[in-house]
Amino acid sequence: MTRANQPIGVFDSGIGGLTVIHALRQLLPQEDLVYLGDTARLPYGTKSHRTIERYTLQMGELLQRHDPKLIVIACNTASAHGLTALQAVSPCPVIGVIEPGAEAAAERSGAVGIIGTLATVSSEAYELAIRRRDPGKVIFSVACPLLVPLAEEGWFDDPVTDSICRRYMNQLPFEVKTVVLGCTHYPTLMTSLERSRPGTQWIDSGRVTAKAVDRVLKGSLGYRTESARGSLRVQLTDASSRLKEVGSRFLEEEMGDIEVVEI
Amino acid sequence: MTRANQPIGVFDSGIGGLTVIHALRQLLPQEDLVYLGDTARLPYGTKSHRTIERYTLQMGELLQRHDPKLIVIACNTASAHGLTALQAVSPCPVIGVIEPGAEAAAERSGAVGIIGTLATVSSEAYELAIRRRDPGKVIFSVACPLLVPLAEEGWFDDPVTDSICRRYMNQLPFEVKTVVLGCTHYPTLMTSLERSRPGTQWIDSGRVTAKAVDRVLKGSLGYRTESARGSLRVQLTDASSRLKEVGSRFLEEEMGDIEVVEI
Repeated sequence: MTRANQPIGVFDSGIGGLTVIHALRQLLPQEDLVYLGDTARLPYGTKSHRTIERYTLQMGELLQRHDPKLIVIACNTASAHGLTALQAVSPCPVIGVIEPGAEAAAERSGAVGIIGTLATVSSEAYELAIRRRDPGKVIFSVACPLLVPLAEEGWFDDPVTDSICRRYMNQLPFEVKTVVLGCTHYPTLMTSLERSRPGTQWIDSGRVTAKAVDRVLKGSLGYRTESARGSLRVQLTDASSRLKEVGSRFLEEEMGDIEVVEI
Repeated sequence: MTRANQPIGVFDSGIGGLTVIHALRQLLPQEDLVYLGDTARLPYGTKSHRTIERYTLQMGELLQRHDPKLIVIACNTASAHGLTALQAVSPCPVIGVIEPGAEAAAERSGAVGIIGTLATVSSEAYELAIRRRDPGKVIFSVACPLLVPLAEEGWFDDPVTDSICRRYMNQLPFEVKTVVLGCTHYPTLMTSLERSRPGTQWIDSGRVTAKAVDRVLKGSLGYRTESARGSLRVQLTDASSRLKEVGSRFLEEEMGDIEVVEI
């Protein structure tokens, strides 16, 4: 029996991963998606390796209730610390966001910039993943702690956001022409980021992850055979009315009902 | 035997409470202080009431190792959710930051503004504490999620911080002449806050808490009898070199060695 009609499970520590859902729905609109956000325990970035690994395994198990054909870890921290452990036990394939972003970065010529949260930048996960593919790659990283709260405030296309993006981007040397958005919140700030550094090629890890999903489906798992637009279920471990409002902005479409699941 | 020479224990979910330490060292320079920051488990603001209560009790127990004469909860969230529970079991008196701030606000005439994190503002802890003293008080609250990351970035006396403060402060009606800094990080942003709303009377909850401590010492506990400057021990449940750098800015003096304690 083919599993092609099973949903794709996507999980994140919060709601930032909804930008990955947006990218998946753009590229693969017919797929059914289940999103699981661990909002009760966010942020993962300040937790220890062992804790993040344990949480990632728990989230993977929760997603198994939906018998997914594939799991996407739409969270940089969980991808860095929990991907290998989840791949070892999961009955279905698991994809993280770092490898696709690193692969795209390694393919570009010249120096590469990585922007992310303090946790992602200090983990050096992107550097390691890029250097596995191109050991001589010149990489500069900048931690941008204000960008997540700015995105959650919804200050898009805003002079304050422009100034902050300019300040962070000016920390990257002039020679950097390719920048990886190493955080799932950042695609929502694209307008300001582009203004802050014209002529840059941006690697949106959500978009390249969606392409990686497409390749896996094409390869062996198979696309959903129905042509109607796929469904989207959003499950969070803790919910507030604000999350729904912010989440809809990340998703770039109206979010349906949020289900709250116990962990 | 007098306990006047025992240290004062201060705890916070992170390092923001070091602004309370700064206020204590200004007002009561001869007191020995032990600071305990639960950096491994921060932020408390997104956790449930029961979890915050449990963490507060654990922190109180850890401080008992130093046999303090008094404990100060220098964290708004832990004060709102854990003060009563800790007072019930602690062998020494316990003071939070909300009651002193609310008391000072209730004494001022006219409408009052409260600024804080999303968690503090939605807890309505300041409103409740002020209304217990003055049921008719007109109170306006504004959540300012960007101010903590701005303070941690150290963007003090900065045009970006000015713009952000102005935007948040403009959400308070013109009639508000008194504003409570309902977050221990905010005193570090005082220059920008003052510029954003000239003529405002600011209630720094750290400073009023230091005054409350002074009253308790004067009343029954007693001041340390040595006149030499008191010592400061800083213990964190998780440490990084960055914490030391940011912490020194909050403390407004060079921080000594940080001890890491297991929880």
